[in-house]
Amino acid sequence: MTHATTESTRTEHARAVPAGGGSERGGRSAAEPRIDVGLVGDALLGRWKQERLASRELAADPRLHTIPGQSMAEHRERALEQLAILVEEGAIQRAYPGDLGGSDNHGGNIAAFQELVLADPSLQIKSGVQWGLFGAAILHLGTRPHHEKWLPDVMSLKLPGAFAMTEIGHGSDVASVGTTATYDPETREFEIHTPFRGAWKEFLGNAALHGQAAVVFAQLITRGVNHGVHAFFVPIRTPDGEMLPGVGSEDDGVKGGLNGIDNGRLHFTHVRIPRENLLNRYGDVAPDGTYSSPIASPGRRFFTMIGTLVQGRVSLDGSAVRAMMAALAITVRYGSERRQFPGADGREKVLLDYGQYQRRLIPRIAETYAMAFAGERLLTVFDEVFSGERDTDENRQDLETLAAALKPLSTWAALDTLQEAREACGGAGFIAKNRLTGLRADLDIYVTFEGDNNVLLQLVGKRLLTDFSARFKNADAATLARAAAGQFTERVTRFGLRQLAQSVADFGQVSRSVEILRSVESQRALLTDRVETMVAQVAMAMRDATKDIPKGDKQALAVAGDAAFNTQQHKLIEAARAHAELLQWEAFTEAVEQIDDAGSRQVLTWLRDLFGLGLLEKHAAWYLMHGRISGQRAEAVTAYIDRLIGRLRHHALDLVEAFGLGPELLRAEIATGIEAERQEEALAYVEARIADGTWPTHEKDLRAQAR
Amino acid sequence: MTHATTESTRTEHARAVPAGGGSERGGRSAAEPRIDVGLVGDALLGRWKQERLASRELAADPRLHTIPGQSMAEHRERALEQLAILVEEGAIQRAYPGDLGGSDNHGGNIAAFQELVLADPSLQIKSGVQWGLFGAAILHLGTRPHHEKWLPDVMSLKLPGAFAMTEIGHGSDVASVGTTATYDPETREFEIHTPFRGAWKEFLGNAALHGQAAVVFAQLITRGVNHGVHAFFVPIRTPDGEMLPGVGSEDDGVKGGLNGIDNGRLHFTHVRIPRENLLNRYGDVAPDGTYSSPIASPGRRFFTMIGTLVQGRVSLDGSAVRAMMAALAITVRYGSERRQFPGADGREKVLLDYGQYQRRLIPRIAETYAMAFAGERLLTVFDEVFSGERDTDENRQDLETLAAALKPLSTWAALDTLQEAREACGGAGFIAKNRLTGLRADLDIYVTFEGDNNVLLQLVGKRLLTDFSARFKNADAATLARAAAGQFTERVTRFGLRQLAQSVADFGQVSRSVEILRSVESQRALLTDRVETMVAQVAMAMRDATKDIPKGDKQALAVAGDAAFNTQQHKLIEAARAHAELLQWEAFTEAVEQIDDAGSRQVLTWLRDLFGLGLLEKHAAWYLMHGRISGQRAEAVTAYIDRLIGRLRHHALDLVEAFGLGPELLRAEIATGIEAERQEEALAYVEARIADGTWPTHEKDLRAQAR
Repeated sequence: MTHATTESTRTEHARAVPAGGGSERGGRSAAEPRIDVGLVGDALLGRWKQERLASRELAADPRLHTIPGQSMAEHRERALEQLAILVEEGAIQRAYPGDLGGSDNHGGNIAAFQELVLADPSLQIKSGVQWGLFGAAILHLGTRPHHEKWLPDVMSLKLPGAFAMTEIGHGSDVASVGTTATYDPETREFEIHTPFRGAWKEFLGNAALHGQAAVVFAQLITRGVNHGVHAFFVPIRTPDGEMLPGVGSEDDGVKGGLNGIDNGRLHFTHVRIPRENLLNRYGDVAPDGTYSSPIASPGRRFFTMIGTLVQGRVSLDGSAVRAMMAALAITVRYGSERRQFPGADGREKVLLDYGQYQRRLIPRIAETYAMAFAGERLLTVFDEVFSGERDTDENRQDLETLAAALKPLSTWAALDTLQEAREACGGAGFIAKNRLTGLRADLDIYVTFEGDNNVLLQLVGKRLLTDFSARFKNADAATLARAAAGQFTERVTRFGLRQLAQSVADFGQVSRSVEILRSVESQRALLTDRVETMVAQVAMAMRDATKDIPKGDKQALAVAGDAAFNTQQHKLIEAARAHAELLQWEAFTEAVEQIDDAGSRQVLTWLRDLFGLGLLEKHAAWYLMHGRISGQRAEAVTAYIDRLIGRLRHHALDLVEAFGLGPELLRAEIATGIEAERQEEALAYVEARIADGTWPTHEKDLRAQAR
Repeated sequence: MTHATTESTRTEHARAVPAGGGSERGGRSAAEPRIDVGLVGDALLGRWKQERLASRELAADPRLHTIPGQSMAEHRERALEQLAILVEEGAIQRAYPGDLGGSDNHGGNIAAFQELVLADPSLQIKSGVQWGLFGAAILHLGTRPHHEKWLPDVMSLKLPGAFAMTEIGHGSDVASVGTTATYDPETREFEIHTPFRGAWKEFLGNAALHGQAAVVFAQLITRGVNHGVHAFFVPIRTPDGEMLPGVGSEDDGVKGGLNGIDNGRLHFTHVRIPRENLLNRYGDVAPDGTYSSPIASPGRRFFTMIGTLVQGRVSLDGSAVRAMMAALAITVRYGSERRQFPGADGREKVLLDYGQYQRRLIPRIAETYAMAFAGERLLTVFDEVFSGERDTDENRQDLETLAAALKPLSTWAALDTLQEAREACGGAGFIAKNRLTGLRADLDIYVTFEGDNNVLLQLVGKRLLTDFSARFKNADAATLARAAAGQFTERVTRFGLRQLAQSVADFGQVSRSVEILRSVESQRALLTDRVETMVAQVAMAMRDATKDIPKGDKQALAVAGDAAFNTQQHKLIEAARAHAELLQWEAFTEAVEQIDDAGSRQVLTWLRDLFGLGLLEKHAAWYLMHGRISGQRAEAVTAYIDRLIGRLRHHALDLVEAFGLGPELLRAEIATGIEAERQEEALAYVEARIADGTWPTHEKDLRAQAR
């Protein structure tokens, strides 16, 4: 086992722990496998390790840190100053073209961005608004003249901008925005107009104070035809902060988090911009008003334009995982030192030795690993598409589906983990300087922005339905019924409707019955089967709902289809979630297989099994109802999970140490060893008083002796 | 159906809705039953309706409202001023003795307190510190001379105080606090001392700034014997804010919420107080140092003293429910107006018409009702004990167990509901002026203070184990095994291990199979059976773990018992949770039975069924694994839940209207009808342009026509 590669990512505290594991590791025996913290840390850092480490170094800079309790006005100014520091430090240029000062490094750009959540989420998201949305829209939706004209000032922050897509009346449904951009061939201008209050642009970072321009999404109308949503570059403010004529702004005020960002509303009253301000990569208007586009279908064109937004989702996915890592590193450290209630030996027990505490934290470590590896895979696909290496329509669609599947689960998991960590640290978790509440408040909005999580999962569900339909296009009813019963393939029928026989065989043989579930193939088959069956069932239900309606009656078909979809919506979203869980499990499994070190692989295999069996336990009702596992086997799953958790408890500190987050990134007082010091001081006090005979006898003991 | 009693609790907006239900109620037919909003509202207000309404009137006073974004320092001063307003308005005196200006109204006091969460949780909890903890400790742990000496100033706020129980090193484990109070017969004083850093008092409201005295919990030591934790009145600050000699304070600084409260730490260096400052109701020290107590057992004495804290848990339980009511009233209103994505008829659909949206909100309405009725029952038991009407040891124990069961579930549910509401309102939910994020941040700490939720549930679990042991004291192994298999009674065996036969009988007969589950008795039997079986299983496992150890080997028994308990801890906590759910279901059922109006009873029965079947669905894996229901019946449960949700959708507005929270209590812009106005404006704009022929054709339609 080599530690040669590990030192750079190990924390100071980790080094202070005696080799071989101190008592805080819960008495692991020497013969047991251990992870190589550096090696596992490298696996988590992934392909863009250098970019991540550089960004972490930057995130450790106190100038970039949150100041709890700072007023909104001060925090907003500070965030703007922090953006200037990012420019100076060369932290934001990576995704831009080489000749404009960038390095065309798309994956590395997002990887570095994700790590900035460890400095301050406000700073992170404000930089995302400026360079990941405003700048990226000019880059991806505009063409060379736009790049040359605006990108240098965007990159240098001379031109702060807003990304004006969302409206008060339209969040996730971008296609329906109300803002119009009507072409006037007389003056060769577009007129940007907000026709009603619901069409005000809303929740835009940089809109309330700092933005001088905005990329505005509006319905492009020329020659009386609406060509759908396009993006326009619209100046909104002078460098002195005065609104330009016809542009109005309203401050969103205090928010539940991210108060370093000046979110606000924008509205436009017949604001005129030159024809050239249309970001015209996917659709253009000639001087005479003729519309043209390289993409004939308005639907495909819309989704292609919106598709460039996928980088926001990829960014949030990895950011959420970093926040989970921080929460768990803080809490596992604290839980390894904090003592509460006397154990059998009379001394108070360390929190992490309690069964319930382990149940709360250790499965979340497994989930964090799964999500980190899945996020790495997503980032790789993203880089392949955006670098042009594999930029095909199919890859773009896969990328979007993957991002839409992973971002909801990781951003929700981040809130869940931050909250569980907060509670596991008790009152100390509620104190701002221990960081858990601040991160949670800031990350709250990650679950609904860059695509509401439920809407994204529905998107994934629809894609799964489409794939299913394509696969069973010419299938007869019996085949479909078999599919809905989960009998897709040989692989799956091994776990098919054989509950009764299995129950008998399993009875009393818990160890053997779990043996099967521990195999990679069984876990994969069970997880895959669930996704496929759920999708098939939704597809069947929707087909049944419309099968008696004449094909010609489009309105009746639409109404019935809408009603059926509504009834199935919850199930479809659950199917999408199951799909995302399978992807996470696959990524985790693949990552474990690539690890050479035997000890690391063993421990991570337990962790992967905990993740996989945890999914089976969570969805046990489904597996039981569908006859995929027997009651005995389901009990065996829980029993084995309990064993895995007990075993992994001894590796919990190593596993969070591999996240590589030193004290300068965690910055939580309770994770500095202060609790262990206090415990030692208290113990020493009691022992000294016992030694010098001044420790008072307890009335309880006197009474016990008297009896 | 009479509305005579209803007007006082109906909201302004509710009245604005056309009678019979407008389109926002989703097209309910006229023949369908409706709830009588006033009657149901009264049922929710319960026995202390007048106190609740008086407190709501106060909570509507703008002087008592949160100002989002206010700095911590300003918010702390404001909260102190707000406390003075509560005194002026006669809002805090209810629980105090009649001859000292109170009205001995314990239930009414807590009921009124719970409603204050609607003004500002900081104000609420700061008033709880002053009058519910500091003042109540003097009242319940002190004797008449203490009452006369200090309570008038406590009640008038002339003497703000802290409740110094928790220590840095000891939160939930109060018996182990490190602070000592050593009696000195020479000077007839106690010396209060903090022996080490971990014994600093921590997270105390009023400790950082405003407290002039504290009730300090410390180990009482006299004549060399430690008589356990007792409470002492200790002056800490001059009225000018200077610390008294030997007393140190440290500010906890910014927290994740409740920043109107000046939480801090206190430590004592050989601080001397008169003997008479011992709050001596349950334990006293004579001038010569002789200890005496009306309660012989130190353990029972400790729990009696600590037992007075139960009112904090009762308070938080109901406060959490009020926050849930506010969250759902805001969100259901918004979801009834907000439109997103076009439906089959071309117009955008109202959010509440989406299946997934209904699945997210309507079961939470059911849960809120269940928790409100359970909380009313808890408050009644509390009042019986604290008024002296039924103050027996057994009732006190029942009260504690009930509070320990309900407070965890309601405080967790409040966070869950506030978060779901926030997400369901999208970005608008994140804006502070819509209140959801602020309430969530403030209520976060409710899940770990006044008893960490996990620790409280464990307490309940232990009580369940004790009851079980008493019941099966002389049982043989076979009887125990039957108990663990859930075969307690005839009532339960109806749902016993008959899965196979039931499956066959159920097959294809979904409606008949759900018919059984809809009966009150079936729901009760299934919920009860689960609790009893889970407890029996834990008891069996713990008995098995120690059965081979000789009774005399106490150390080995302790170690094995500790290990077994640890293994079972998670299951025991789950059993306690199941017990609490059953209590909620029982309270809901009892409340429905007391409702005279047929329409109201019908709708609330659906809602109760949704709650009950929701529990069966949530724990379906358990019921399936234990052979209590078949796979077909489990599917029928889900199918019936879907139907109930669809049916209750039309009553959602009525059901949240019955919470009786007017705009002055909700104070959320999105719940004022503003969204409906915007939607109407947008629709009118489009219709006008279509009418005057200026609405542009969409390229999509042109292409469709061309085909």
